[in-house]
Amino acid sequence: MAVKKVFLGEEFMPKQWYNLNADFPSPMPPPLHPGTGKPPTPEDFAPIFPMNLVEQEMTPQRWVDIPQEVLEIYKIWRPSPLYRATGLEKALDYPGQIYFKNEGVSPAGSHKPNTAVAQAYYNKEFGVKNICTETGAGQWGSALAFACQQFGLGCKVYMVKVSYNQKPYRRLMMQTWGASCVASPTDTTEAGRKILAKDPDSPGSLGIAISEAIEEAVQRDDTRYSLGSVLNHVMLHQTVIGQEAKKQMEIMGAYPDVVIGCAGGGSNFAGLAFPFLADKIAGKQIHVVAAEPTSCPTLTRGPYGYDFGDTNQTTPLLPMHTLGHDFVPAPIHAGGLRYHGMAPMVSHAVNIGLIEPRAYDQIATFKAGLMFARYEGFIPAPETNHAIASVIEVAKQAKEEGKAKTILFNWSGHGLVDLAAYDAYLSGKLTRYELPEEEIVRALKALEGMPKIG
Amino acid sequence: MAVKKVFLGEEFMPKQWYNLNADFPSPMPPPLHPGTGKPPTPEDFAPIFPMNLVEQEMTPQRWVDIPQEVLEIYKIWRPSPLYRATGLEKALDYPGQIYFKNEGVSPAGSHKPNTAVAQAYYNKEFGVKNICTETGAGQWGSALAFACQQFGLGCKVYMVKVSYNQKPYRRLMMQTWGASCVASPTDTTEAGRKILAKDPDSPGSLGIAISEAIEEAVQRDDTRYSLGSVLNHVMLHQTVIGQEAKKQMEIMGAYPDVVIGCAGGGSNFAGLAFPFLADKIAGKQIHVVAAEPTSCPTLTRGPYGYDFGDTNQTTPLLPMHTLGHDFVPAPIHAGGLRYHGMAPMVSHAVNIGLIEPRAYDQIATFKAGLMFARYEGFIPAPETNHAIASVIEVAKQAKEEGKAKTILFNWSGHGLVDLAAYDAYLSGKLTRYELPEEEIVRALKALEGMPKIG
Repeated sequence: MAVKKVFLGEEFMPKQWYNLNADFPSPMPPPLHPGTGKPPTPEDFAPIFPMNLVEQEMTPQRWVDIPQEVLEIYKIWRPSPLYRATGLEKALDYPGQIYFKNEGVSPAGSHKPNTAVAQAYYNKEFGVKNICTETGAGQWGSALAFACQQFGLGCKVYMVKVSYNQKPYRRLMMQTWGASCVASPTDTTEAGRKILAKDPDSPGSLGIAISEAIEEAVQRDDTRYSLGSVLNHVMLHQTVIGQEAKKQMEIMGAYPDVVIGCAGGGSNFAGLAFPFLADKIAGKQIHVVAAEPTSCPTLTRGPYGYDFGDTNQTTPLLPMHTLGHDFVPAPIHAGGLRYHGMAPMVSHAVNIGLIEPRAYDQIATFKAGLMFARYEGFIPAPETNHAIASVIEVAKQAKEEGKAKTILFNWSGHGLVDLAAYDAYLSGKLTRYELPEEEIVRALKALEGMPKIG
Repeated sequence: MAVKKVFLGEEFMPKQWYNLNADFPSPMPPPLHPGTGKPPTPEDFAPIFPMNLVEQEMTPQRWVDIPQEVLEIYKIWRPSPLYRATGLEKALDYPGQIYFKNEGVSPAGSHKPNTAVAQAYYNKEFGVKNICTETGAGQWGSALAFACQQFGLGCKVYMVKVSYNQKPYRRLMMQTWGASCVASPTDTTEAGRKILAKDPDSPGSLGIAISEAIEEAVQRDDTRYSLGSVLNHVMLHQTVIGQEAKKQMEIMGAYPDVVIGCAGGGSNFAGLAFPFLADKIAGKQIHVVAAEPTSCPTLTRGPYGYDFGDTNQTTPLLPMHTLGHDFVPAPIHAGGLRYHGMAPMVSHAVNIGLIEPRAYDQIATFKAGLMFARYEGFIPAPETNHAIASVIEVAKQAKEEGKAKTILFNWSGHGLVDLAAYDAYLSGKLTRYELPEEEIVRALKALEGMPKIG
């Protein structure tokens, strides 16, 4: 009887996070303060983040100890299982092996709690009482709500109003975990009131919600802001995924030729890929693919430059592949991939040739996700479907070339509260989105006044 | 670091199902043919079920081999993890230990695939091409859709129309797994047309949906009907739960003083409890509790007698605790517990004193479920909340008596697509339901014309 999956005992949970910044062959460019044009000091971040997380954001250390309190919460769902996708292999008549790391087993249903729990812990340690954040479709907001509940912290989530109304399930998850979730724009912040004065019926946007969350965090002494992707410390926390996967692949007697993840802000991708990139930098032959949507092709078509992390230009300038901070992505169903920028660490890794980015149209991704659901059972999140589309593409290419490559990908989350998107696909209502060339011209123009990299 | 959960390797999956019928101290009364008043012959079932399942329904064997093909599909999510509810213990300041078996890890999110996969396999083996079934809230329909997809069988689910319209998520799961899901009553069956002629806007009922599914199964040579609970073979298939739990408790160095499950038709309860009842019959001291809703108190208040399994009187007469086949349960959120009868095996075990039934109001159950979600992370299904309410009650009693009892319960499924019910609870919109005494009088009257047990 062939083995389908590998669990690890809790005693094998990684005790440290891995920091790829310690191993990059050439160092990543620093962020810049938009006022001074120089790298920001830790104090610049103090009103927004607790200092222990700011230190982690800037650390050059290769390994960072995971606090015991974080490990205790991780044990609710970690180590997550590694699966052999035998059903998919059979359906594709693939001569090689396909593995996936199932991050959908967390209470919130995705990889997001890996960093949410860590961030809640460090905020609590620093004496913070409440955390504010924004959320689009709700994956991040629900993960942070769960994490704050575990540490007895207050949690307030500014959820983009159109999602708040149309996608009630993740909002209900947040409330079930005791968080307060409000429809952004609200009339309780300056930023929100400004928008409502212009347009009382504003559907909201991620940019507005970020501004509201940061405004509340800055104004209250006992409150800080939290971000679910993009930043270095978020990438760091996610590396438990790849570290576990390495051990599990070893138990399976395998090592990947190809490592694949979907990429929006970059964190689930980094979580699986970075520990393998360490091997690649050390000389191993691994093909690492980041799968993104054609509607928001940050890595495949966005220029590499300094840009703001948010629409309202409140963050430091980050060195990243970006479609411009004023970019408005198409309303695709993979809400987690609708971000104008990409984590600086992932962007740098692409820029120095460690990662190959590929873009997929949402119709192709749902076709892939449906195939997965039917042959493997579990229904993937719309974001995860991008990774699956890439896996199928890579497997077909390998088969044509007569190669039995071992493929490993990150199954970043389940799609049980995204089923309306599958309905849209099955009933032929999904739209194809290809970003028009003028959007790239606009992005380049938006970066013109910014400092240049290198 | 205390251990939070135990996984078992796939090599430790049970290779046989356990049949409690072989060990009952006094035999269970047989079902009766309503026409002859005698036990039905296998042939009586032939138009409805494949003969291999009919044989399993009637087998006196203690152990039944699980086919290799079924084990292969079980491996997608089995063995399921056993958890120590450390968060709940702490919240209750409980001196003993609380464990739960997490059946929410299956692709459909509940214990239902344990029998769905087995039934799909036996139908396929028998040459059946399509399976028809009914579903209320959709737990069963989605599990069978998943199972049929795995074996390449067609699957048609008659879903009660009011649920079809109000609860789209499980319907969408069925469609994602390739099943056809229709709103019952339909105009494609005699039974459906009869209802629609009287009331074109009929919201449907489980009784009508069963009639439609059986009608289609009987009329088509290549089609059979499938039931997700109540019957002996369904109880049998679920016993993988309790067998795994025994091994996992042993690894934890523990054995339960109390075993608890929620009970609607009885299958998840039986799945956990029956392997422990074998120990109880052999002399072990175990307190076994079945938790049901006060709105549908089949075991605590329903008389024990022969009754039909369905509203339209098409099934054999089953010896069971029942509120009468014409009982219309209140619209509580635990759809899986709204059934007028109870599995004959569970009913018999209650009748001979092996099980203590207890009833809980839905408001108490959601209070318990919310506490669980906040201290353990995972959000339970409304059905599962009944077991949790019972666990909390038993733990509090034990604590008061100064006893550190070890409690084990079945976490039968997650509530991610039932979040609207949590919303209703949190916003104070849930209603308390206590069954009025006249309903028991009505149930007794309904049984008056039936054969008597014993």
